[in-house]
Amino acid sequence: MSSIRPAVFCTKMGCDLRIDPFLTEDLTCDAFLGGKVMLRQPRDGYRAGVDPVFLAATVQAKPGQSVLELGCGAAPALCCLGKRLPGLDLYGLELQPAYAELGRQNLSENGLTGTIWQGDLSTPPAEMKALSFHHVIANPPYFESDKRIKADDGGREIALAGETALATWVETATKRLRPRGYATFIQRAERLPELLSAMQQHLGALELLPLLPRKNRPPRLILLRGRKDGRAPFQFHAPQIIHEGPVHTEPGNAYSPRFDAVLSQGAELPFSS
Amino acid sequence: MSSIRPAVFCTKMGCDLRIDPFLTEDLTCDAFLGGKVMLRQPRDGYRAGVDPVFLAATVQAKPGQSVLELGCGAAPALCCLGKRLPGLDLYGLELQPAYAELGRQNLSENGLTGTIWQGDLSTPPAEMKALSFHHVIANPPYFESDKRIKADDGGREIALAGETALATWVETATKRLRPRGYATFIQRAERLPELLSAMQQHLGALELLPLLPRKNRPPRLILLRGRKDGRAPFQFHAPQIIHEGPVHTEPGNAYSPRFDAVLSQGAELPFSS
Repeated sequence: MSSIRPAVFCTKMGCDLRIDPFLTEDLTCDAFLGGKVMLRQPRDGYRAGVDPVFLAATVQAKPGQSVLELGCGAAPALCCLGKRLPGLDLYGLELQPAYAELGRQNLSENGLTGTIWQGDLSTPPAEMKALSFHHVIANPPYFESDKRIKADDGGREIALAGETALATWVETATKRLRPRGYATFIQRAERLPELLSAMQQHLGALELLPLLPRKNRPPRLILLRGRKDGRAPFQFHAPQIIHEGPVHTEPGNAYSPRFDAVLSQGAELPFSS
Repeated sequence: MSSIRPAVFCTKMGCDLRIDPFLTEDLTCDAFLGGKVMLRQPRDGYRAGVDPVFLAATVQAKPGQSVLELGCGAAPALCCLGKRLPGLDLYGLELQPAYAELGRQNLSENGLTGTIWQGDLSTPPAEMKALSFHHVIANPPYFESDKRIKADDGGREIALAGETALATWVETATKRLRPRGYATFIQRAERLPELLSAMQQHLGALELLPLLPRKNRPPRLILLRGRKDGRAPFQFHAPQIIHEGPVHTEPGNAYSPRFDAVLSQGAELPFSS
């Protein structure tokens, strides 16, 4: 749980969140879900984009159910999920201590309660291993393909691409799921083969939702969901389109109505449209 | 090669193909590619739909290159490919002797030369094993999911679903490919996980093209291409839309311009739109 420290308030216009003075210099304070969630993030480190917001929007959980995020970072997904669906038990695991602490503070400052452990997902803390969850979600880090093309042997390529690690994410998620629980991952489309193979080994009732940046464009992101002990056939859902219009224009780079509702009003993003 | 038998002409209006009198009763004579290809098929057996036409339309082969189809049936894909790209060396393997013979006759009667072997892809004929090919294509048979849900053990389910067989298709295709050659499969979207896993084990530079029956619908068919010794990252291409309009209406169930060109004019279907 969040440690208690002396706090000040963010000076950014329209933001009244408390800011930890030990971290202030390197943090920004950003609005998500149209301001329903205010998130402190490192100015120069990993910063949440739309990915964790989409991930959180797909979770179909009921009050009283538990949700674990693996690699939760500063907890953007947990904050968005907690705001959309009150009454969930929120849990996160984060490798980097500074992000874990930031995640705890972000939950607290957004009026949410939850537990964020610092630890490695291949050797999770005993407290986490003692629990199981209705839902496990993850947005695993992505290693750019141009880095792995350089590897000149298959084993090294797998290591560089994080393929083993991605399988470990899915394996850890499955171990921590309750029977019939759901694991949902968001990932770059380029890693579909690795992620789908890993999920196919451990989960059933797989569902794929590709997100196209625009009509007639290749998907940049995919959402994959699987169910522990699920037996239903694989479902390839209708791709959903994030932006309206054929090209990127500023100003006016409009989101489609569905994604505008997800991003600015905290609406659900169903796999099946 | 096709055996020589006494032949008569088809009496169907507009069709002047020779018909084998031993087979006439159970055959129909159907136009593909706007009549560029006339195909004899069993009236009540497996009949080619759009799948082999789409499969043939994706192949990017140069004159003088060789193409092998595994499970070629009555050779609709080989006929369509041979008509679109003259000068290819066409080969097929078909398990059922009657379809293999029909395939030979269809090639011949459409003015194409080619070799169709009768045999099992898990134990291919020695003649086929002595060759390698620039392209291997396949439209493996599909077992309906409602049949496999009934299986009550995992091993039997895999057998019924043909999962092992699908891996064998990909393995055989890879063995018969020349270095840097391409394998292209068309399959129902439901079997993406099995097919992608198998291709990932044996091939590189994988590419996925989902075909949506209409805008905002889930894909029914997927095309997957892989390259022997390929090292490029996986590409998830922009889904392509087969039919115009939001609903199925008769008459006027119009194809989109791209698919109309593929189906009625024998145009290419590029993975990348």
